[in-house]
Amino acid sequence: MNFVEVIARKRDGVELSSEEIREFVQGAASGTLPDVQLAAMLMAICIRGATPGETRHLVQAMTDSGERWELARSFPGVVDKHSTGGVGDTVSLVLAPWLVACGVPVAMMAGASLGHTQGTLDKLAAIPGFAAAASREEAFQRLERCGAVLARQSARIAPADAKLYALRDVTATVPSLPLIVASIMSKKLAVGAGKLVLDVKCGSGAFRKTLPEARELAAALVEVARAAGVAVRAVISAMDEPLGPALGTACEVREALACLEGRGDARLLELSRELVVRGLLLSGHAPERAEALAAEALASGKARACWDAIVLAHGGNPDPSLLAQPAQQHEVLAEAEGYVVGVDGETLGWVAVALGAGRRFPQDQVDPGAFLRVLVRQGERVRVGQPLAVLAWSQRQVDPQTLASRVRRAFRLGEAAPASTPLVLEELG
Amino acid sequence: MNFVEVIARKRDGVELSSEEIREFVQGAASGTLPDVQLAAMLMAICIRGATPGETRHLVQAMTDSGERWELARSFPGVVDKHSTGGVGDTVSLVLAPWLVACGVPVAMMAGASLGHTQGTLDKLAAIPGFAAAASREEAFQRLERCGAVLARQSARIAPADAKLYALRDVTATVPSLPLIVASIMSKKLAVGAGKLVLDVKCGSGAFRKTLPEARELAAALVEVARAAGVAVRAVISAMDEPLGPALGTACEVREALACLEGRGDARLLELSRELVVRGLLLSGHAPERAEALAAEALASGKARACWDAIVLAHGGNPDPSLLAQPAQQHEVLAEAEGYVVGVDGETLGWVAVALGAGRRFPQDQVDPGAFLRVLVRQGERVRVGQPLAVLAWSQRQVDPQTLASRVRRAFRLGEAAPASTPLVLEELG
Repeated sequence: MNFVEVIARKRDGVELSSEEIREFVQGAASGTLPDVQLAAMLMAICIRGATPGETRHLVQAMTDSGERWELARSFPGVVDKHSTGGVGDTVSLVLAPWLVACGVPVAMMAGASLGHTQGTLDKLAAIPGFAAAASREEAFQRLERCGAVLARQSARIAPADAKLYALRDVTATVPSLPLIVASIMSKKLAVGAGKLVLDVKCGSGAFRKTLPEARELAAALVEVARAAGVAVRAVISAMDEPLGPALGTACEVREALACLEGRGDARLLELSRELVVRGLLLSGHAPERAEALAAEALASGKARACWDAIVLAHGGNPDPSLLAQPAQQHEVLAEAEGYVVGVDGETLGWVAVALGAGRRFPQDQVDPGAFLRVLVRQGERVRVGQPLAVLAWSQRQVDPQTLASRVRRAFRLGEAAPASTPLVLEELG
Repeated sequence: MNFVEVIARKRDGVELSSEEIREFVQGAASGTLPDVQLAAMLMAICIRGATPGETRHLVQAMTDSGERWELARSFPGVVDKHSTGGVGDTVSLVLAPWLVACGVPVAMMAGASLGHTQGTLDKLAAIPGFAAAASREEAFQRLERCGAVLARQSARIAPADAKLYALRDVTATVPSLPLIVASIMSKKLAVGAGKLVLDVKCGSGAFRKTLPEARELAAALVEVARAAGVAVRAVISAMDEPLGPALGTACEVREALACLEGRGDARLLELSRELVVRGLLLSGHAPERAEALAAEALASGKARACWDAIVLAHGGNPDPSLLAQPAQQHEVLAEAEGYVVGVDGETLGWVAVALGAGRRFPQDQVDPGAFLRVLVRQGERVRVGQPLAVLAWSQRQVDPQTLASRVRRAFRLGEAAPASTPLVLEELG
């Protein structure tokens, strides 16, 4: 089969066979297909889309392109959780110890920060000594020791995805639904937890801005998971204003601890609880029992204790006083008054990146002490001179006035209090 | 401007600006844009198409990417002729001396054979000593000396096209109308003849199989030429069976000489005359005068004499007995009887390539003596055992039986004589 003809078929909107898709993916992983052919195929997929069958074949071929951990064989109860990426989303750090405290083992692949959202891998790296598992053996050992593994995305897992992702980034083919689904699900299936909680973000701070877009992604992810025999529950959650108040690595670890101690941000705690409950439902608990279990694990301090155990099992020091603090801080004060009717999470995410709390380019260094902390939430009334947010940084050259005015513009003020919107917009699975 | 955003705009079907297109084309010519971005953009153009304005900007940017010969400034009467590629199309070799004999200077860029059609450059190379002009200086000298220049496609002319063409070939983006138009017209405009005769092929042996497809291409070429101030006449001509009977380089030179001596194939002579007359109309002659001039130039032997002058001016030896002859020949005999109701020109073109008369890959060597000569034309009645074609070769390992059965299958026989179809299907401009 000449691969130019395969590209031509996709170009013309013809459905590709399992073998044709496998040739594409294996060619990407092995380097036998030239990058220009991969780029042309990615653009053809991006414009023409993919059928559900093509998407499943793409996921399967990408899953098969590397190592398979088959976690569920050794840990049948293990739950994986994935979020499609949002601002101030500290849920992973709260959910992992909370589920473990409820008796449910957890496995999560953590990604690095890139763009306006902060990655869990960098948050973990803010904990002194914390070493995210990198190999299958390390992952299994940590699951044995503490009931949870937080693993770095391994180059051996779905190597075709790493290759294709790098190409998508420079060829304007990132937003393709089948390519997004394949990228997410191939890594999930290669790790091989049998249960999956999905948090699909929807709103101005997310990659999917509207509910129909988020629904489309959630449905496609759920379908692929089901087809692969994974038990799945997905929620679509609001991502307009930042989910939690903390945008920055050490700052988010502190916020997670606050939640685990019952004193954290109400919205972050609420979504974490929703997702913990979904994990318990997947584990076979009835709804009332799941709610009760989750509440008890938090109130008893068990979830908080599990955090320390997880950190220790990953080689880290759980002492919160060791978390990095910023050298400089700047309060952003309101210059007008009114109700906060909207907060542009994406803009705040980029300000956090500018402070050093994230990465614009993969080679950028993250400053663990840098953060943006949101002080007022949507629906609150603000008066002139009231602090809206705190900017904090150490290592970067920062112009706080410029960033402050960007932050102020991100808070949209109105005459009347906005209607409150639910955090969980929809549920699938 | 980030080029990923430009690709994204084309991906989403947004019309690109002149500056964005120029960035793309200059990036291709200079190598400053990575090949994977060029490939993605080509696929986006291929699927999304281009507006007339985008196509004009593409042509202009590609024209400006290299040397401009501006032929019309020094030779205002010069006529260029272009064919979109067909099988047995020996017209260029007949038309050039014929127009010169009518007092009209001719400039043509000759391309190499690739795929199922034979290229004029290889036909010229079959003439001992013939050196196609390569530089502007050589082109001007030859025009001065003999009134015609047959030039090799120079790497300095529209270098962006050479780069993009190589990418299109491996990324399944060859059939894109705006890319085809830009590839053809950028080279025409860079050479800069002020008058252009276009022969757009239509049929099973051409790249455009149907009349609407051919019309679309012809109209787009005419529009771009007009917009650039080039006087243009285009015909759409039938390309189902081979135009002339000869498929092969030296064999086509002999066929051209036969036409110039008034004893060649009727269809080849007819289309050559049609295009010569179009060239004379562009040169300001009234229709009756153009017809008479063309007839007189042929009948008087002046066109035939101009051929020798052109060959001599290009360093070649016009003695026809020096043209390569094949070492072996094989007659393909009919195994059934009936009227020839169709001849698959593309299949015959590929058989000629297999004999060594063309190239499957750019690095292939062409055997000047190899040819396929068609002996019966559409509409004729064939009896069992009658020769359909002659296969001839020297340098290749050839299995004549296999090729013969492919040739036989290319002749579709029927009970009744087919309706005769016109050679010139339509005319534009």
